[in-house]
Amino acid sequence: MSASDPVGNLQSLIRCPSVTPAEGGALSALEAMLKPLGFRVERMVASEPGMPDIENLYARLGTEGPHLMFAGHTDVVPPGDEAAWSHPPFAADIEAGEMFGRGAVDMKGGIACFVAAVARHVEKHGPPKGSISFLITGDEEGPAINGTEKLLAWAAGRGERWDACLVGEPTNPDLLGDMIKIGRRGSVSGKVTAFGVQGHAAYPHLADNPVRGLLPLAAALMDPPFDGGTPEFPASNLEVTSIDVGNPATNVIPAKAAFAFNIRFNDTWTADTVKAEIVRRLDEAAAAGALRPDRDPVRYEVLWAERPSHVFLTRNNGLIASLAAAVEEVTGRSPALSTTGGTSDARFIKDYCSVVEFGLVGQTMHMVDERVALADLETLTQIYGTFLSRWFDNALLS
Amino acid sequence: MSASDPVGNLQSLIRCPSVTPAEGGALSALEAMLKPLGFRVERMVASEPGMPDIENLYARLGTEGPHLMFAGHTDVVPPGDEAAWSHPPFAADIEAGEMFGRGAVDMKGGIACFVAAVARHVEKHGPPKGSISFLITGDEEGPAINGTEKLLAWAAGRGERWDACLVGEPTNPDLLGDMIKIGRRGSVSGKVTAFGVQGHAAYPHLADNPVRGLLPLAAALMDPPFDGGTPEFPASNLEVTSIDVGNPATNVIPAKAAFAFNIRFNDTWTADTVKAEIVRRLDEAAAAGALRPDRDPVRYEVLWAERPSHVFLTRNNGLIASLAAAVEEVTGRSPALSTTGGTSDARFIKDYCSVVEFGLVGQTMHMVDERVALADLETLTQIYGTFLSRWFDNALLS
Ligand SMILES: [Zn+2]
Ligand SMILES: [Zn+2]
Repeated sequence: MSASDPVGNLQSLIRCPSVTPAEGGALSALEAMLKPLGFRVERMVASEPGMPDIENLYARLGTEGPHLMFAGHTDVVPPGDEAAWSHPPFAADIEAGEMFGRGAVDMKGGIACFVAAVARHVEKHGPPKGSISFLITGDEEGPAINGTEKLLAWAAGRGERWDACLVGEPTNPDLLGDMIKIGRRGSVSGKVTAFGVQGHAAYPHLADNPVRGLLPLAAALMDPPFDGGTPEFPASNLEVTSIDVGNPATNVIPAKAAFAFNIRFNDTWTADTVKAEIVRRLDEAAAAGALRPDRDPVRYEVLWAERPSHVFLTRNNGLIASLAAAVEEVTGRSPALSTTGGTSDARFIKDYCSVVEFGLVGQTMHMVDERVALADLETLTQIYGTFLSRWFDNALLS
Repeated sequence: MSASDPVGNLQSLIRCPSVTPAEGGALSALEAMLKPLGFRVERMVASEPGMPDIENLYARLGTEGPHLMFAGHTDVVPPGDEAAWSHPPFAADIEAGEMFGRGAVDMKGGIACFVAAVARHVEKHGPPKGSISFLITGDEEGPAINGTEKLLAWAAGRGERWDACLVGEPTNPDLLGDMIKIGRRGSVSGKVTAFGVQGHAAYPHLADNPVRGLLPLAAALMDPPFDGGTPEFPASNLEVTSIDVGNPATNVIPAKAAFAFNIRFNDTWTADTVKAEIVRRLDEAAAAGALRPDRDPVRYEVLWAERPSHVFLTRNNGLIASLAAAVEEVTGRSPALSTTGGTSDARFIKDYCSVVEFGLVGQTMHMVDERVALADLETLTQIYGTFLSRWFDNALLS
């Protein structure tokens, strides 16, 4: 079976049960596709104390610039209730024009199509007029500590440089061609604890209810809005995602109360400036005091979750234009250039080169019966192939 | 051993392990003290579906008015960590002038002293010029559903009428003679749930965070104060005792959020009017909308805890004056007339007759090494005896 068939590529990948952190044979399957095309394939194992080792893969075809990177992951989320699947989650069964399996759209499908596009490109045009590389991690769905970030640093440390990157995550909400992601908001999470003095509800003067202090702190973070949005980004948005006092006794005033929050911020901010603004709001609300009748400053602490996600926005018009034109040429659809949604590994890649994201339709990702239309696999392969030609033509001209 | 010795009475009672709902022999021990004094003793078993039966006791000496009731409970809270006690919790050991045991002050001690006071009164003056009764429950420390409330209704249904009642709970914060309780605030508890729409924190426009709605509801209940207090009572006070969303995922907006509250209200309010004010505040805050940017009315529900505690305040100067004079005569201390603290069974008794509370020093109640000074037992017996004489004299004069 030739690597130019995305259906076969995807079946090989889905049949490897690569639930994070397991490699599951998926990187080896990918290696088997890439080597015959001339790629130099390297495996890089990343380690972290107390965490399982993670296998990653870097492969390059060509030695010169311009250099285009395709980035993604072969690890998948667990299948959940396997009995609820119409077809076994690692069987890659095809029924009525759809292939079923965990990772079908997120994102073994994207990898399968890019491999097929490169294979067809090489078959038709010979080796690329520059370099193509695959930067594939096994730790995107997990803590992402032993994945893309370390793999980039490792490759860069060996002298690798890239001009642009396409991430193959499923970016289309409904139909192939709907949406290219040109940026992602940043994300910072934390937990605020207000301290009081425990006591009996019948003796409030002997106690200090931390809930009185917590409420204005939480309110200060949610209102007013952090900004009104930018031309490329929606407004930054903070949500208090949980408040948990855990006091079962209705006649007891608790000793402390805490809430958790998460902010998705646009390029008005960096992770550091948004944290500073959060602290400023908390300090101001704390100094203003708890709800009456206690007007003392609120004693509180904020604990930041590890590793904020940084915001990124790509303004490289050559990259975006090549991809958008390829989408439009193949699908007849004009893709939205979006910055919505959650975080992705593109937040690490943006420190090395321009990066955009385009892949399959995401509707079934992470769900039971994750599946992809075979027609979409062929269409995405054509889009990726057209993009390859356009991008190298454009990069060589400029 | 004569019932006129409060130390012996209390040892008999403590040695009965009457942890709610167990009778543990305590009511039988009390019956054995009262019968020789001429009391007609009846036992009343109260039942409720799904709950253990509870034994209660009613005993009356005399058939005519005026009629004075002594009310209390023989049930006790569990001893907790028995190994942490200096003496076994049901041994009634005496060491260095103190008797150790669960219930020593709350409130087998009060019962032991009142029995002794009655015994001495009968020995000295003969039967009372009227009637004395004991209304003793075994369900005060438990849910209080099969206790004083049902026992009162049962006795009243048999034609019993009372002119005044003394509850023997430990009312003194530090020293015997510190404080008489002439009223108690009412108590109402409830739980408010705000409803939203679950979603991903990265797509807030598809979700509706119920925490945004919950915060102004909680704030509206805590501020402004419900009142400024009355001559007899401190200000009513509402505490939000817990907020529990229970959402472990920092990237998920929860579907609902809830808080629990408890208000201790003075005689500015009844349970019904205070509930109405709470609903008015919630409705007003809900209509004003969630914190920006969502200004829709907040969808919420309030669930009331069963059985509010009603406020009571005794203004019967004869009863209070007799007790205060007795305290002052025996201890030289002028007792504060207080309405502070938690609820007590006096909230049920006030529907039948005037009621006040006076007993031992409460410092060790519900704690490991609950204990009472033998000197306090003698002093309280003298106070109760002086009160008996004064109250009957006063009631017969008026
Ligand atoms: Zn993915
Ligand atoms: Zn008690």
